Amino acid sequence: MTTYPAIDRQRFLKRLDDFAAIGATPAGGVNRQALSEEDRQARRELCRLAQARGFRVFQDPMANLFIRREGRNSAPPLVIGSHLDSQPTGGRFDGALGTLAAFEVLETLEDRGIETVLPLEVVAWTNEEGSRFAPGTMGSQAFALGTVPEEWEDVRDRNGARLMDELKATLASLPQAESRPPGFPISGYLELHIEQGPSLEREKLPVGIVHGIQGTRWLEVAVSGQAAHAGTTALSYRRDPMIATAAALDRLFRTVMPSDERARLTVGRIEAKPGSVNAIPESVEFTIDLRHPDAATLDELEAMIGRICKKTADEARCDVKVRRFFDMPPVAFPESLLGGLEKAAERLDFPWKRMLSGAFHDALFVSRVAPAAMIFVPCRDGLSHNEREHVEPEHSAAGAQMLLASTLEVMELLAGQKPSPGQL
Amino acid sequence: MTTYPAIDRQRFLKRLDDFAAIGATPAGGVNRQALSEEDRQARRELCRLAQARGFRVFQDPMANLFIRREGRNSAPPLVIGSHLDSQPTGGRFDGALGTLAAFEVLETLEDRGIETVLPLEVVAWTNEEGSRFAPGTMGSQAFALGTVPEEWEDVRDRNGARLMDELKATLASLPQAESRPPGFPISGYLELHIEQGPSLEREKLPVGIVHGIQGTRWLEVAVSGQAAHAGTTALSYRRDPMIATAAALDRLFRTVMPSDERARLTVGRIEAKPGSVNAIPESVEFTIDLRHPDAATLDELEAMIGRICKKTADEARCDVKVRRFFDMPPVAFPESLLGGLEKAAERLDFPWKRMLSGAFHDALFVSRVAPAAMIFVPCRDGLSHNEREHVEPEHSAAGAQMLLASTLEVMELLAGQKPSPGQL
Repeated sequence: MTTYPAIDRQRFLKRLDDFAAIGATPAGGVNRQALSEEDRQARRELCRLAQARGFRVFQDPMANLFIRREGRNSAPPLVIGSHLDSQPTGGRFDGALGTLAAFEVLETLEDRGIETVLPLEVVAWTNEEGSRFAPGTMGSQAFALGTVPEEWEDVRDRNGARLMDELKATLASLPQAESRPPGFPISGYLELHIEQGPSLEREKLPVGIVHGIQGTRWLEVAVSGQAAHAGTTALSYRRDPMIATAAALDRLFRTVMPSDERARLTVGRIEAKPGSVNAIPESVEFTIDLRHPDAATLDELEAMIGRICKKTADEARCDVKVRRFFDMPPVAFPESLLGGLEKAAERLDFPWKRMLSGAFHDALFVSRVAPAAMIFVPCRDGLSHNEREHVEPEHSAAGAQMLLASTLEVMELLAGQKPSPGQL
Repeated sequence: MTTYPAIDRQRFLKRLDDFAAIGATPAGGVNRQALSEEDRQARRELCRLAQARGFRVFQDPMANLFIRREGRNSAPPLVIGSHLDSQPTGGRFDGALGTLAAFEVLETLEDRGIETVLPLEVVAWTNEEGSRFAPGTMGSQAFALGTVPEEWEDVRDRNGARLMDELKATLASLPQAESRPPGFPISGYLELHIEQGPSLEREKLPVGIVHGIQGTRWLEVAVSGQAAHAGTTALSYRRDPMIATAAALDRLFRTVMPSDERARLTVGRIEAKPGSVNAIPESVEFTIDLRHPDAATLDELEAMIGRICKKTADEARCDVKVRRFFDMPPVAFPESLLGGLEKAAERLDFPWKRMLSGAFHDALFVSRVAPAAMIFVPCRDGLSHNEREHVEPEHSAAGAQMLLASTLEVMELLAGQKPSPGQL
């Protein structure tokens, strides 16, 4: 059915299990937070496997780990991979699947003695999750910037450990790796990842070809009124920020998502202060996670949120401040690469669909410096960032096979066209 | 203008200042929480003043403090007073005003050698606020029950201190006080208090005659859905408890208070779990403080809240549980006593209005065992439970004068009619 070399399914599935044991939690998940001892152990194991096969290993100042297999020419490499760090109560597949599948691609090509046009590198990006050291996707961000941002100097974890100290110790724990600068030319980037949503599973598709990542904005809304006694203060005397908040949220939930099925509006945090059962709150603060694939629509939605919050606050004689504290513009992956992935899926006879990623990924940042694309596989119940996260073995294997096929297709495309990011 | 003996305004205002110094906070408020060292100091000072005037001092097992002036007969006393404990960042007048005004009434009668028909006692109830040891109004509750509830054996403050130990130490710190049983017959009860709301101030009235206390119910609403990724989960896949909560609260705020101006609906606490910016919450929990002077209407409103929460949860494919965790039925004070208070206000030429108390007070519990009534004076901006709480000296003095006049009027009424609680 396929003209591509087949991955070693047994080796690959065993390797997923082996890595799931590093930082394993009693509930079947993984706690392998960025730059922890568990994270270092996973890096050392991957490095050991790589060097056993004779591949060179590199790390840059952000501790991004690269494993290189040479190609026919010395052009910038095609890079494939994902991350090895996890949430504190994370799953076995988020990140590890894409990283280990990429290594399986490298080994399969080596096993079969297949020479690629371009060098091929596997990457494990540092701190994708951001749960120990915020923000997330640090490794790919620094790679895309070509430098480690100065403001990360002060980043510490909850226990006071400094990012920079943990980074240094992590680098030192892998002395056999060669040093690389933070950011260097690459020809392209492919990432396999679990969907972290339910749509592939519900549509019974083993493969999603990700054509872009929707834009995300995080807003913090603070509605302030006047604290007063719950029993003695009549409605006409109230400046009750909870009344304004309920009106604003209900109106937003009835408007934003129902009228645009590509929009996502989530209120994950809310707090009333002082938080007394029998007191009208002084203030109510909540966050809004707003997402849309279209940048102009994001602008319109953000403006509308501001107007609705202002109007409902005015009606309740309250004040409101809306502050944007995170802004990630949408990304569209280049058509040329997507065509290569579609060809791979067709030749493998894998049912697939084009889809958008609702979550961020390292590919989002890498796409700023090189043509990039992603492959999704289904996960059970769309569950992720959860110890119960699960991927069927057939889907893990299909994902690795799809990554291999896509790598070969994209390798041809890139070698043939020598595209630059601007052209794509 | 008045035929009543005049209180010693200067002595009384100075005494308010003296007591405000006990537990004074830098911001001009008071931190004199129940059974604390500051509370004990205030009790000792009041006891010292009482014994200097030759009054007998008693305390019951709940550390309620009584100061007695004998009357012409030995019938159960008329009791007047309030509490001395405060919120952690409380004001100078909440409680102290009514307690010290009651003592000023006792001293004025003593100064003038006025003999009353019934014995007159000043009371300082223990732990009205409930901020250190929950629940509040412990002293008056135990008095009305005639016993200290067994379940209070386990009550501790935030630092682990046991209520029973602090009670024992407080009792021991006043060895000169005679012991009394928990609850004993009294002929009636009057309490002066600040309004803790804005209406008297806005209507420029120095006196409110409180004809009852509205009923209060506290409900805890837990809406549960399914946690999911904010970016990957479309509206049609969501079971988002925040959508249900916003719809329920908006509908309740638009219905309950606007359609019944005697109703109060307050949501002072709300929490989304797990509380992540970029995750649809697993659950949203909030409290409802519901008040109304009519018991049947409270039943109807509580049923309506249940229906609305159920409907909005159903619409969002969520579950909801509504739990009532506090229920204080409304109280109506007896007309006969209120007539005495109105006569006093008229003869003093104080503009007044009848009004309902939106807050609980010790009078609520005492009214279960004896005819009771309350007098309110205005406080600035209706502010209370706040270090900026303020009462104009003229209003404090008017309140004490009104309490004295009311005491004499009610004393006559009670002595003449010998009413029982059932008759009133």
